[in-house]
Amino acid sequence: MNAEIIAIGSELLTPFRQDTNSLYLTRRLNELGVEVIRKSIVGDHRGHLAEAVTQALDRADIVITMGGLGPTEDDLTRECVAEALGVQLKRDNDIVAELYARFAARRVKMTENNARQADVLAGAIVLPNDRGSAPGQWWQDRWGSRQKIVILLPGPPFELEAMFEKQCFERLQHAVPAQHIATRELRIALVGESTADHRAAPIYTRYTDVETTILAGAGEVQFHLRARSESPEEAEERVEELANELEEEFAEEAFASHGEKLEQIVGYYLQMRNATIAVAESCTGGLLAQRLTSVSGSSRYFVGGVVAYSNDMKTAFADVPPLMIAENGAVSKQVASALAEGIRKRCRATFGVGITGVAGPTGGTDEKPVGLVYVGVTDGKRIEVVERKFPGDRDRIRMWASQQALDMVRRRLV
Amino acid sequence: MNAEIIAIGSELLTPFRQDTNSLYLTRRLNELGVEVIRKSIVGDHRGHLAEAVTQALDRADIVITMGGLGPTEDDLTRECVAEALGVQLKRDNDIVAELYARFAARRVKMTENNARQADVLAGAIVLPNDRGSAPGQWWQDRWGSRQKIVILLPGPPFELEAMFEKQCFERLQHAVPAQHIATRELRIALVGESTADHRAAPIYTRYTDVETTILAGAGEVQFHLRARSESPEEAEERVEELANELEEEFAEEAFASHGEKLEQIVGYYLQMRNATIAVAESCTGGLLAQRLTSVSGSSRYFVGGVVAYSNDMKTAFADVPPLMIAENGAVSKQVASALAEGIRKRCRATFGVGITGVAGPTGGTDEKPVGLVYVGVTDGKRIEVVERKFPGDRDRIRMWASQQALDMVRRRLV
Repeated sequence: MNAEIIAIGSELLTPFRQDTNSLYLTRRLNELGVEVIRKSIVGDHRGHLAEAVTQALDRADIVITMGGLGPTEDDLTRECVAEALGVQLKRDNDIVAELYARFAARRVKMTENNARQADVLAGAIVLPNDRGSAPGQWWQDRWGSRQKIVILLPGPPFELEAMFEKQCFERLQHAVPAQHIATRELRIALVGESTADHRAAPIYTRYTDVETTILAGAGEVQFHLRARSESPEEAEERVEELANELEEEFAEEAFASHGEKLEQIVGYYLQMRNATIAVAESCTGGLLAQRLTSVSGSSRYFVGGVVAYSNDMKTAFADVPPLMIAENGAVSKQVASALAEGIRKRCRATFGVGITGVAGPTGGTDEKPVGLVYVGVTDGKRIEVVERKFPGDRDRIRMWASQQALDMVRRRLV
Repeated sequence: MNAEIIAIGSELLTPFRQDTNSLYLTRRLNELGVEVIRKSIVGDHRGHLAEAVTQALDRADIVITMGGLGPTEDDLTRECVAEALGVQLKRDNDIVAELYARFAARRVKMTENNARQADVLAGAIVLPNDRGSAPGQWWQDRWGSRQKIVILLPGPPFELEAMFEKQCFERLQHAVPAQHIATRELRIALVGESTADHRAAPIYTRYTDVETTILAGAGEVQFHLRARSESPEEAEERVEELANELEEEFAEEAFASHGEKLEQIVGYYLQMRNATIAVAESCTGGLLAQRLTSVSGSSRYFVGGVVAYSNDMKTAFADVPPLMIAENGAVSKQVASALAEGIRKRCRATFGVGITGVAGPTGGTDEKPVGLVYVGVTDGKRIEVVERKFPGDRDRIRMWASQQALDMVRRRLV
């Protein structure tokens, strides 16, 4: 079966707002084996909206609208869906009573327009809204020669997700043929997108029954795998087989198979080994510490971090000898080592990490260009320092550098 | 005039990818006075794609497609637009020759399918692609009873933006009636969305000729203002007038009128006052340092930062007396002050900032619940410490806390 999603609201046609609900809905629909064949974004315009719903009904088994259910004149979804389906709208007195009660509880007089939220498509089931005033609707019946499901959901993500989870997912599960979807999300570090695809394509193209989507960020590539079958075991088996083959190909670089973040994986290994970590950052300016501490429970292994932007602070917080900085420059292999060693000792941590580099856009020279970064990792016995030249702007260079550091720690731990 | 945007590619109908090009295009189209009336996202499916283009032509003056211009069998945009327009596709020999040259330069034999990229709509202008192999197309002619413009752009943002800037924007400017659009982006700190709207609505609703869009994040609300007129002066005047009224209403909270980030504004004031800053963070874990240093040139005023997660580190890096922590707890007004004072002295900075709190989801108690945060700011003469209870999850609490700290520094500087 297939579905179309229609996001409604003129604000979604400005440069400032974007529909994100459809990503969530697509994920849940895909889990039921329902494919999304089109997404449309329309404004609060009677003609465009009714037309969009009619055209979606022509193509798809399931049509989901998001937004336009509020009390104002701009909220046209109910009327337009009624027009497209060719059914009447009826005012539901129970909903009107509830709306009155809700306003009374807040000691506010309900204005007349609010009663529009009680208009229900003939034959539809009302979907109560735990988190807002506008109820949703579920309409399921024959339309033309085919059976259709039309679901009206509110626009705010917080209301929409709660309503879909509690009142739509199970209903849909009963309405669509049983399908099982197994997924994996393999993540690999420090490989470029084209290299990753070049190495992975000979493998995943052999799996015509597993869908592979590749996403890339700074210092990370994700393989999203998805297999579908009537048998849950078969779907799991296929996706597992491909995941295993890819993990073999990327034995060194793969760090997660279920979408875990690199900082989560590093935290997990640190805890497992009863180890702790401390970091001294220059060009990443706190990004590495921020990523490590974004994981709940990180206080168990993250001891401390310093952001040593100036030369003085490199000495004051991580005991980097001033002479070393004078001789080699602040962006050097030596200083990266010294930062790592210094912060490890100061914090009495198992691992010390030092980062120094040129994040740009200014400050680069022929000898030390923008993107040049040194990362040092030490456990007190063995120190490893790498030199890298990362691509992109300031944000991307900082992200790559923090990714490099995290992956070096991970490799020391596995 | 109005436009429709069609994003093409089956990957855009998965839960993992989203069209973001349309936000950029909408901004540029709006600047020319062109409204976007519908956005559609369709897969690589001949029937759906041709239908989407035909329906868009029925409604809009300008139809822009993004994606589906590559060499593979899945790249159907050229064929489907030709079908919708009812024109022929002709292979352009100059483009074929260029493609051959491009492959030869890389010493790779060109496969036959690549030549499909040279298929051009009859009457269309070819738009060379500086950043990839697939050229775009500009078709402008009568279709049915009306004049239409159809633009075919490549999908990758990096190729699309360069092509639109260099080859489409000016052409469009000549094709549409002259319109001037003036914009402002007012940002205010530490006010909730509903409070902000409650205070702002009586003002902006009086300006029926200025469009106001409100966006909210953790600790920040943005007002996007847009006025349009045939006279550039009039558009500027209207938007300026509303911006001034809003800035008066939010005299204390408004920090930017042209979309600057709070960390940029703080950096700007620090430089102007020849002042420097140092930070000691606990629950924000480096986020504040990371935001301050994300601004290019921040090394001029950011001296250093420490992430003191453990009690020992609070003492070791910011001289917080152990007894003070024992008596008041690490999450306390006293410790926030001591962190601010300690880091200021250590770094010999003009301002010192200290943050301590419970970011959650674990670690909260009845007395010190998740979301409780203390922020201290000192200049060595006067110390200010605030206690806040922020809403949301770990990420949002940390973001709010860093926003609180930045705004306290800003208020000290203005």
